[in-house]
Amino acid sequence: MSGYFDAIAPLSYDPDADGLAFRAYDPDEMVMGKRMADQLRFAVAFWHSFGWEGGDPFGGQTFERPWFPANTMELAEMRANAAFDFFKVLRAPFFCFHDHDVRPEGASLGESRDRLERIADIFETRMAETGTGLLWGTANLFTNRRFMAGAATNPDPEVFAYCAATVKACLDVTHRLNGENYVLWGGREGYETLLNTDLGAELDHMGRFLSLVVEYKHKIGFKGAILIEPKPQEPTKHQYDYDVATVFGFLQRYGLENEVKLNIEQGHAILAGHSFEHELALANALGVFGSIDMNRNDYQSGWDTDQFPNNVPEVALAYYEILKGGGFTTGGTNFDSKLRRQSLDAEDLVAAHAGAFDVCARGLKAAAKMLEDDRLEAARRARYAGWNEPWAKAMLEKGATLEGIAAEAEAKGLDPQPVSGRQERLENLVNRYV
Amino acid sequence: MSGYFDAIAPLSYDPDADGLAFRAYDPDEMVMGKRMADQLRFAVAFWHSFGWEGGDPFGGQTFERPWFPANTMELAEMRANAAFDFFKVLRAPFFCFHDHDVRPEGASLGESRDRLERIADIFETRMAETGTGLLWGTANLFTNRRFMAGAATNPDPEVFAYCAATVKACLDVTHRLNGENYVLWGGREGYETLLNTDLGAELDHMGRFLSLVVEYKHKIGFKGAILIEPKPQEPTKHQYDYDVATVFGFLQRYGLENEVKLNIEQGHAILAGHSFEHELALANALGVFGSIDMNRNDYQSGWDTDQFPNNVPEVALAYYEILKGGGFTTGGTNFDSKLRRQSLDAEDLVAAHAGAFDVCARGLKAAAKMLEDDRLEAARRARYAGWNEPWAKAMLEKGATLEGIAAEAEAKGLDPQPVSGRQERLENLVNRYV
Amino acid sequence: MSGYFDAIAPLSYDPDADGLAFRAYDPDEMVMGKRMADQLRFAVAFWHSFGWEGGDPFGGQTFERPWFPANTMELAEMRANAAFDFFKVLRAPFFCFHDHDVRPEGASLGESRDRLERIADIFETRMAETGTGLLWGTANLFTNRRFMAGAATNPDPEVFAYCAATVKACLDVTHRLNGENYVLWGGREGYETLLNTDLGAELDHMGRFLSLVVEYKHKIGFKGAILIEPKPQEPTKHQYDYDVATVFGFLQRYGLENEVKLNIEQGHAILAGHSFEHELALANALGVFGSIDMNRNDYQSGWDTDQFPNNVPEVALAYYEILKGGGFTTGGTNFDSKLRRQSLDAEDLVAAHAGAFDVCARGLKAAAKMLEDDRLEAARRARYAGWNEPWAKAMLEKGATLEGIAAEAEAKGLDPQPVSGRQERLENLVNRYV
Amino acid sequence: MSGYFDAIAPLSYDPDADGLAFRAYDPDEMVMGKRMADQLRFAVAFWHSFGWEGGDPFGGQTFERPWFPANTMELAEMRANAAFDFFKVLRAPFFCFHDHDVRPEGASLGESRDRLERIADIFETRMAETGTGLLWGTANLFTNRRFMAGAATNPDPEVFAYCAATVKACLDVTHRLNGENYVLWGGREGYETLLNTDLGAELDHMGRFLSLVVEYKHKIGFKGAILIEPKPQEPTKHQYDYDVATVFGFLQRYGLENEVKLNIEQGHAILAGHSFEHELALANALGVFGSIDMNRNDYQSGWDTDQFPNNVPEVALAYYEILKGGGFTTGGTNFDSKLRRQSLDAEDLVAAHAGAFDVCARGLKAAAKMLEDDRLEAARRARYAGWNEPWAKAMLEKGATLEGIAAEAEAKGLDPQPVSGRQERLENLVNRYV
Repeated sequence: MSGYFDAIAPLSYDPDADGLAFRAYDPDEMVMGKRMADQLRFAVAFWHSFGWEGGDPFGGQTFERPWFPANTMELAEMRANAAFDFFKVLRAPFFCFHDHDVRPEGASLGESRDRLERIADIFETRMAETGTGLLWGTANLFTNRRFMAGAATNPDPEVFAYCAATVKACLDVTHRLNGENYVLWGGREGYETLLNTDLGAELDHMGRFLSLVVEYKHKIGFKGAILIEPKPQEPTKHQYDYDVATVFGFLQRYGLENEVKLNIEQGHAILAGHSFEHELALANALGVFGSIDMNRNDYQSGWDTDQFPNNVPEVALAYYEILKGGGFTTGGTNFDSKLRRQSLDAEDLVAAHAGAFDVCARGLKAAAKMLEDDRLEAARRARYAGWNEPWAKAMLEKGATLEGIAAEAEAKGLDPQPVSGRQERLENLVNRYV
Repeated sequence: MSGYFDAIAPLSYDPDADGLAFRAYDPDEMVMGKRMADQLRFAVAFWHSFGWEGGDPFGGQTFERPWFPANTMELAEMRANAAFDFFKVLRAPFFCFHDHDVRPEGASLGESRDRLERIADIFETRMAETGTGLLWGTANLFTNRRFMAGAATNPDPEVFAYCAATVKACLDVTHRLNGENYVLWGGREGYETLLNTDLGAELDHMGRFLSLVVEYKHKIGFKGAILIEPKPQEPTKHQYDYDVATVFGFLQRYGLENEVKLNIEQGHAILAGHSFEHELALANALGVFGSIDMNRNDYQSGWDTDQFPNNVPEVALAYYEILKGGGFTTGGTNFDSKLRRQSLDAEDLVAAHAGAFDVCARGLKAAAKMLEDDRLEAARRARYAGWNEPWAKAMLEKGATLEGIAAEAEAKGLDPQPVSGRQERLENLVNRYV
Repeated sequence: MSGYFDAIAPLSYDPDADGLAFRAYDPDEMVMGKRMADQLRFAVAFWHSFGWEGGDPFGGQTFERPWFPANTMELAEMRANAAFDFFKVLRAPFFCFHDHDVRPEGASLGESRDRLERIADIFETRMAETGTGLLWGTANLFTNRRFMAGAATNPDPEVFAYCAATVKACLDVTHRLNGENYVLWGGREGYETLLNTDLGAELDHMGRFLSLVVEYKHKIGFKGAILIEPKPQEPTKHQYDYDVATVFGFLQRYGLENEVKLNIEQGHAILAGHSFEHELALANALGVFGSIDMNRNDYQSGWDTDQFPNNVPEVALAYYEILKGGGFTTGGTNFDSKLRRQSLDAEDLVAAHAGAFDVCARGLKAAAKMLEDDRLEAARRARYAGWNEPWAKAMLEKGATLEGIAAEAEAKGLDPQPVSGRQERLENLVNRYV
Repeated sequence: MSGYFDAIAPLSYDPDADGLAFRAYDPDEMVMGKRMADQLRFAVAFWHSFGWEGGDPFGGQTFERPWFPANTMELAEMRANAAFDFFKVLRAPFFCFHDHDVRPEGASLGESRDRLERIADIFETRMAETGTGLLWGTANLFTNRRFMAGAATNPDPEVFAYCAATVKACLDVTHRLNGENYVLWGGREGYETLLNTDLGAELDHMGRFLSLVVEYKHKIGFKGAILIEPKPQEPTKHQYDYDVATVFGFLQRYGLENEVKLNIEQGHAILAGHSFEHELALANALGVFGSIDMNRNDYQSGWDTDQFPNNVPEVALAYYEILKGGGFTTGGTNFDSKLRRQSLDAEDLVAAHAGAFDVCARGLKAAAKMLEDDRLEAARRARYAGWNEPWAKAMLEKGATLEGIAAEAEAKGLDPQPVSGRQERLENLVNRYV
C-alpha cells in the first residue's frame, strides 16, 4: 500500500466548508427523478491521475509519486491500490483505464495479457470493497513505437493483428470487471502526411476492425456499449475520427451506426471547431450519443490541454443537451483531465476532482431546472410551430415535388417575412439559471 | 455594351511576355492525354467579378464599374455583356452564376424568374458567340433577409417553399444553358445559436429538400451533377455542410450518396481545419468528388478571404489528387475568388485571373509529371505491400474473427517492427517537380 | 421623434421580474466604496445600435428602423433622438460615437464638420435632459473608400491630411460634449499584403500622427484621455495596433507612453490569442490601462463577432483585474456589441443591453468580494515571498553581476526545489465567488 | 566513434542526382556578391537531430541511435562525435546547441559546468577539423522540473540565481568556441494561469536578468550578438516574448533595444498569427533583426511542429526581406527542425537537411533575382512617391500642427482618390521568380 492519500479524509458534501469538501455535489440530492450521483456518473481517468508524470514536449517529469516509474509489477500493484485509495477519498462512482496505464508491458502479447489480468484481480477486489464501478476500459494503441503509423490503419498488417489481440484482451478484462462501456480512441488512426498514405485502404481497414470488435462483443455477451471517441488531430496531423458527424458517416458506411455510440470530449469538440453542446446535440439527433469526457481545453491553446472543467455556464449547456436526450444510460462523466504539471501535491489531485464534481453538479442542477421550467423549449417549439401546419407537413411527405411546391409558392404569392431569432433574450434566459 | 474591357486585348500564351499574357497556361498543350484546357476546365465566378462592389464588414464600395449598382434590368444587361467581354479577354472556357448575381430581384417569385430568363437569353447568345460554357448555376439563398434564419432549414415553412420555387427556376435555367453541374451551397443552413435551433428537424428538412431537387433533376432530364459545397462556418457560426466527411454522412443518411457529389473549395477546406488535398483525397475515396473552387484563404485570417491561388506547390498537390482520381468529368476549376478591395482597375481583374490560370497550369503540369513518373505512387504501394499477402487479406474477409486473429498473433509471437515513413524524403521528391 | 422605443418603459432594478428589468444591476448599490453605476460606467455604442443595418459579408440589411437609411440630416436627427430615447430606457450613464455614425458625410470636409456640429447640438440638449454622458468620441477613418489603404498610414499624404482634419473635428466635438476620452482605432492602419507596403514609413507616419493629436489635445485643454484600441486583424490582414504589448512598444518608440492609454476589447484580445484578463493585467503592469469594450467574441469564429457578454465567470476575472488596478478613472465599460442580425426587434436591443448590464454587475460583485476577501492575493503574495529576502532583492539592484550571482549559486550549492502552483485550487477558489 | 553515418558519403552539388545530393544548393555559387554558403549560413540544431528521441505527448521514443539514452559522458561523447560526422556529410557551415543537449546534467552546478567544458573540448577539436562553426549557443532553462514555473521569472529567487550560473557557463563556452551569437529562448518565461502570477514583477525580473547577461557579455569581450527568440505560447499558455513587436517593447522598457537582437523562427511567427516575412520586415524596420530559425509549422496544427522547410515561394519571401535588410551579419539560417517521428533512418536525417538546404537555396536565388531586378521595389516606391513632395514632408516635421494641417486640408478642398493597390499583379510578379 502506498499510503499516498492517507492524510486526506474522504470528502463529504458541505456547502460551507473551507477545506476539501464537495460544496455543490451532493450525491443523494434528487435531480429530475434520480440521485445526482446517478445522473452524473463521475469517473476518474487512471492514466492522467496515476500514469502521467507531468511531462510536456519541452520538459520532463515533475510529479513524484511513490509508484513511479511503475515499470515493475510491484510498483504497478502499489499504484493500483493507491488509485482505489483515491477513489475512496472522492467516493468516485466509476473509473476508466487503458491496459498501458495499469500494467508494464510484457515481453510478449501473452505476458502483457497475463499482467493485465493480474492487475484486474486487484481491481476486482478493490471494486467490491469500495463500490467503484468501471465506466469503461480501453486499449492504448498509440504509445508504443509499433503503433507510430497507426493501429488498425497501420500499413503493416502485423500491427492490425497485434491490435486485434490487444483489444480482445482489454475487452475481455472490461467484460470481466462489468464495464459499462468499451471505448476506442483512434489517436494514431490518421496520418502525418498524405504523401505516404492510402486513405481509402486505411478507412476500410478501420471499418473492418470495428466490425470484428462488435462481433466479438456480441459473442462474449458484453452488454456495455462500444464507443468511439472523436478527435480531429493531435497526435497526428489528421485523425479519421474527426468529430461526431465524421464518425457517424464512417459508421453508416460500414453498417455500424446501430452498433456503436460515441464518447464525446469537450476538449476534442473544441479542437474540431465545435462547441461541446453542438457535438452532444448532434449525437442525440443522430442517435449515437453514448458518454462524455468532461475536460475542457484552453480555447486559445491549439493543442489538447485536458483541464478540469471550471466554467459552470458552459457545463450547464452540456448537461442540458444530455438531459434533453434522456440522460446517460451506459455512459457517464469521465474526467480525462490532468493536473497542470506544476500542481505537484496529492492535495492538488483531490482538489481538482472535487472542484470538477462541484462545477458539474452546479451545471446539472441549472440544466435540470431550465428543462423543467420549459421556457427555453417553449420558445424553441414556438419558432418551428409553422411546421405543424398540414400544408407544411405535406412538403415533407412522399408525393410532394419540387415543381408542385414551386407552383404553389408562386400561386400564393409567397413573400416570407423574417421574425426575430431572439438570441440575446434566450441567452439572458439561460443566465437566470446559471 | 459597357466597353469596360475594350482596352485589353485577349490574352495569349507567351512565356516571355512582360505585359498581360499567359506565361504557363497554354490551352492546347497536351497533359496526360488531354488539352490543358480540358484538364483544367477554368470557370470565372460571376458574383465576385461582376457583382461584388468591394465592401467588407468595415467599409463600403471601392470598385467603380459602369453597371453598378445594377439594380435595373438595363444595368444588369450591361453587366451581362461586360462579363462576356471579359470571358473573351481571358478565353475562359466556363463561367458560374447565382440568380442573384445576374438579375435584380423582382417583386414576386414570378417576376424574379422572368428576369432570370431574360438574362439567360443574353447568356445564350453570348455563350454561342464566345464558346464559353456554363460550369454550374446555383441559387442565392442567403443574401435576402428572408433567408436570414436559413433556406431549406428555415423554421418558417414558407421559406422552404420559397426556396423550392427559386431552386426550380435556377435549375431550369442551368438546364437550358447546358450547365455541366448544379451547385447547392448552404451558407445559412446552420445556426447562430443552438438555443433556438431544432437540429434534428433542420437536418431532416435539408435532406428532404435535397431529395426533391434530385427527383426534379431526373424528371427534366438534367444530365449534370448535383453538387454540394461544404463550408464549416461563415456566415453562420455552424454550417451543416461542414466538410467532405460531414456531407458524406448526411448524404448516406438520406440515401443520396450515389446522387450527389461535392464541389470542394480550398478556402473552405482550410476553414474546416483540413488541407485542400485531404478533402480531395477523401472525396475520391468516398466516391463523391465533383468539382473544385480553386481559391485560397489566408491561413492566418479566420474568415473566408477568397483569394486567387498563388502558391504553385500547394496547387500541384491538389491537382495530383484530382488526376489520381481520374481528373474532372462534369467538374472543373472555378475561381470563387475576389480581387482584394484595393485592386480597383479592370486590369487587376484580368491579371488576377491570368495569374491564377498560370499557377494552376504550373501545378497541373507538375502533378501530371509526378503521376506519370510514378515514384510517389511506387513508394506508397511499397508501404502497404504487406496487405497483399494472403494471411493479411484473410483478416479483412468475412469469416475472420477478432479472437481468431488474436490467437494467431499470440501464436506467431508477433512483435511488429516499425519502418521509416520517409516523409521528408517524399517531400523532397515532390520538390523536384514543383 | 421616432417614437421607436415608446412602448418600452424605463428599466428598473427588480431581481424577480419576469419581463424587461435589471435583475442584478442596481446602480445605487455600493461596491468597494462606490455606486455600482460609478464602478461600471456603462456606455452604449451608437454605431452598432443605431447605425448598423444587420448586414454581414453574405447578406444585406435585416433591421428595419424608421431612421434608415439615415442618409439625410432629417433622418440623422430622428436617429439621434431615438438613441437618447433608448438611453433613457436603459438609464445608460454614457454613450460613444464616431462622426460617421451620427451624420451623413457632407460634400466637403467643412460640410461634414458642420453636420457633425449640428448633431452635437442635439446631443448637447439631450445629454442635459437625460444625464447621459459621453464616454468617448472617435473618428471613423475606415469606412469610406478613401481610407481603403489606411488613414494616417496611407501611402497618399492627402489622406493623412484629410485624417488630420477629421480627427480635429471629432476631438473638438468630443471636447465640447465633455467627453471623458477620445479613442483611435486603427482599423485600416496595417496592410493587406507586405508586397506593396513600406512598414517602416507607415509606422513613422502613424507615430507622427499620434503626436499631432496629443499636442492638439493639450492645446485645447481637453482633459480626457487619448486611447488607442488594439486589434490584431480584420478588416486588414495585419493591423499595427496588434495588442497591448505591441501598442506599448509603439508608444515608447515615439515617446508617447505617458500620454496615451488603451481601450481594450475582449473580442480583440481573443483575436490576438490572449485572454481578456491578460490584456488588462498587462496594461495595468505597463501603466497604460484606460477603458474597455466589454463585447465578447465567439472563441470559435475567426472574426470579430461583437457579441454582448454573457459569461459571468469570464467577466468577473476581467473586473477583478480592473479593480485590482484601482478601477476606472476616465474609462468605462463600453458595449461595442451588436445584436445578432436575426434579432430584429426593438425589444431585442433593450434586452441585449439589459442582459449585459446584469452580467457585468454579477461579475463586478464577484470580483469585488474576491478582492476584499484577499484569499487570491494572499496566495499570490505567498508564492513570491522569497523575493522579499535581502539576498534576493540584491540580485535586482545595481551592482549585482551575473558572475557574482553565479559564484554565489555555486558556492551555496543551490538546487531549487519546485513547489505546487496550485492552479486547480485557485480555480476552485474563484468558483466560490462566481 | 559511433560510425552511425559511415555509410553516407558527403553530399555534393549535383542538380541531376537521383540519390542524396544538393540539387540546388551550390555553396560556391555567387549570389548578390557573396558565396551562397555565406549568404545562407546554415546551421544544424543539435537538440532535435541528436537529442530528441522521437516522442510526442502520446507516445515515446521511436528513434534508435547508438548514443541513446545519452545519460553518461561516454554516450554524450559518442553523440558529439556522431554529430560532427553528420556535419561533415552535410558540409554544414554551423551548428547550434544548448548545454542540456550535449552533456548529462551533473549533481551540482559545478559538475554540470565541468561536463559542458569537457564536451566543448571535443567540439573544439572537431570544429577545427571540419571547419564547422558555432552559430549560437544557449542554455536550456525549461526541461528540468526546477524550471517548471519559469527561469528568470520564477517565483523562487533561487531559480533566478541558478539560471544566472547556468547562462554564465553557457555564454563562457559559446565565447570560447567563437560562437557568432548567444540566444535566449524563454520557453517557460510566461505563465499557465494568471491567477497565481505577478505579471509586473516577472517582467521586471526578466528585464533585470537580460541586463545582467548583456553586462557580462561586454565584460568578457564576447563580440557575438545576444538574441531573444520570440514565441507566443507552448509550452506555457502565455509566453512573455510573444512576437517581434512585444520583445521590442520589452527591450525599450529596460533600455536594451540597442544591445539585443532577435532570432526569428518561422514556426513561432505563425503561432503568433503572423507571416514569417512580417516578423522579418518588422525586425528590420525596428533595427533588431538578428538571425532565423527556418523551420516551418503546419498551418493547421495548433502547436509547434518544427518541420523542415519545403515551400520555396514562402522561403523566397523570407529571404527577400533578409536580403533587403542587408543580409545576415552574425546571424544565419538555423534549422530548429525535427524529423517526423516516423522518419527512423539515418538517411532521413541527412535527406531532410539536404532538402531544406535546397529549398533555401532556391528561395534565396529567387529573392536575390527579384531584388536585383528591382521591379517589386520600384512599384513600392511609386506607391509612396507622394511623400517626397515638400508639403507632405512638412507634415512630418516639427512645427506642423493638427490644426494647421486640418486648415490646409479644408482650404485645399482635399478629396483624396484611392488608387489600385495592385496586390494580384504583385503576386503574379513574384510568381515569375519562384
